[in-house]
Amino acid sequence: MTHTLLSPMDMHVHLRDEAMLKCVAPLSAQSFSAAIVMPNLVPPITTIEALKAYHGRILEAMGEMIFEPLMTLFFKSDYTRAFLEEASLYIKALKLYPSGITTNSEGGVASMDIETLRPVLEVMSDLGLILCVHGETNGFVMDREKEFCSIYESLASAFPRLKIVMEHITTKESVALLDKYENLYATITLHHLLITLDDVAGGMLKPHLFCKPIAKRYEDREALLQVSLKAHPKVMFGSDSAPHPVHKKECCGCAAGVFTAPIALQALTELFHKHHMLANLQAFVSNNAQTIYGYKPPFKEISLVKIPYDVPHSYGDVIPMFAGEQLAWSLK
Amino acid sequence: MTHTLLSPMDMHVHLRDEAMLKCVAPLSAQSFSAAIVMPNLVPPITTIEALKAYHGRILEAMGEMIFEPLMTLFFKSDYTRAFLEEASLYIKALKLYPSGITTNSEGGVASMDIETLRPVLEVMSDLGLILCVHGETNGFVMDREKEFCSIYESLASAFPRLKIVMEHITTKESVALLDKYENLYATITLHHLLITLDDVAGGMLKPHLFCKPIAKRYEDREALLQVSLKAHPKVMFGSDSAPHPVHKKECCGCAAGVFTAPIALQALTELFHKHHMLANLQAFVSNNAQTIYGYKPPFKEISLVKIPYDVPHSYGDVIPMFAGEQLAWSLK
Repeated sequence: MTHTLLSPMDMHVHLRDEAMLKCVAPLSAQSFSAAIVMPNLVPPITTIEALKAYHGRILEAMGEMIFEPLMTLFFKSDYTRAFLEEASLYIKALKLYPSGITTNSEGGVASMDIETLRPVLEVMSDLGLILCVHGETNGFVMDREKEFCSIYESLASAFPRLKIVMEHITTKESVALLDKYENLYATITLHHLLITLDDVAGGMLKPHLFCKPIAKRYEDREALLQVSLKAHPKVMFGSDSAPHPVHKKECCGCAAGVFTAPIALQALTELFHKHHMLANLQAFVSNNAQTIYGYKPPFKEISLVKIPYDVPHSYGDVIPMFAGEQLAWSLK
Repeated sequence: MTHTLLSPMDMHVHLRDEAMLKCVAPLSAQSFSAAIVMPNLVPPITTIEALKAYHGRILEAMGEMIFEPLMTLFFKSDYTRAFLEEASLYIKALKLYPSGITTNSEGGVASMDIETLRPVLEVMSDLGLILCVHGETNGFVMDREKEFCSIYESLASAFPRLKIVMEHITTKESVALLDKYENLYATITLHHLLITLDDVAGGMLKPHLFCKPIAKRYEDREALLQVSLKAHPKVMFGSDSAPHPVHKKECCGCAAGVFTAPIALQALTELFHKHHMLANLQAFVSNNAQTIYGYKPPFKEISLVKIPYDVPHSYGDVIPMFAGEQLAWSLK
């Protein structure tokens, strides 16, 4: 049994830099035709020079593979119109992080005050740049995304022409916003379709499943699953694949991030097939994103076959989700 | 500044066995005069022979130190009256674990059905044996203790002469039960007075703060703190100090348990002092338990002085809470 996907895309990925980039970028390119690349390097991507240099390093890491890295800038509320006009030649989106909310987000915005953000968001609206948001407050870990929903609502109302992507949503409350505001969209990860907090901390504590936002409750996972399986036109697959070397995961203070890039398509195919929704996977992993981003990715046929795939224990220094386990589908 | 405690007790501790026992038992004896010792070894303590042998190994590990290990049996619903009568010569309590709910609990009870438990609980009532309970369902990790509250209520109502200790409570719902049923008591750990899920999984993931029941919300911690600081007569200090070797904590599937035995009294003194409640610490760490258990521990004066204590990075192969940090009080 074979299932073919045309130009699948990963609308939220961390490719990192240097040795890690060289390790993980080809693994993304193996499955995907294009990807929205997160800008939270150290230091974050905040200049045209850094943007172009990072783009070059990614292409170099890809070698001859067909894969278009779609670049993003790290949101700063003091960017000028002239700067954003120039940047818009190179980027699809800006990624907004509340300061300190996740890995390498220390330079993020200190306040989500609309008036502080207004100048940059107005220019982004004018230029058709997309706003990608890590939507968490600094509240109690299980409430952070839910608490952020009112901020999403304020942003969506205040900037009706701005396309806002709620990145890696994890709650039923965020899902509910999709049908409430025309200009709110979302990416959904593989792992948030599969796990809850029980998988992270209900049995043994599992550092390789620890991520931000943290996995939530069963009813949240169910809400994410339902909009994904039906390929709700406002949701896109974004893996949030976030590799860390094993010594930063299995230690006394484990970094947040699940590494899924090399197994995401196989696991998604298994999930959609199990739910008899395989016909919708194309929209979830490509067509919806093409419409939302107004973007046509390089043509690439990716075929999956229903032959078991033994997930490696590691890729280089990184442990993937399902390490050492078997998935039902393989890349052909 | 000095504060002296008379015969402090730890009413819930895991002393383990073999090399670990030899490492941790003297650390408990340094601070405490007596302790309720958990029976969840592998295999669990379910016979008089195992009980006496384990008691002997603990005494041997203590050497000349003044410390009385108060033994418990691993609850089984098929114990006979004759067996329990003989066991009652050696034990204070039986510890009931729902099967599979925590470390080494696989042999626990498969069902909390009152009628299944009735024969043993009736005999325990007759003999004045105390029932210690790990009160969690197998539900969602943040709901397990709250869901168990109705079981505590059924037990308390069905066996009014039985003293039932809700072990290591972590929720405001459990606190509320203390004033509702005369025969419900509780132990409270140090770590649940200090941390919430935010400390475990809100920043980096912290395996050394991962325990069962998992730390809950701020309002839960506040409820625990209030009954502890006022030394509510039905609450007792029980550290649930649960050592694991570092390779079982910093790995891909971390075992549950916080190791606090060697730093518990220092940290409790700091906490009660900070809240101007030092006068109540004696009741929380000894007097309440003496009344509830009807037990007089060996006389032992433990003095704490307000001199900073640099917590070691490890004790043998075990990482304690506050490893490498400084506490405000030291054992004299």
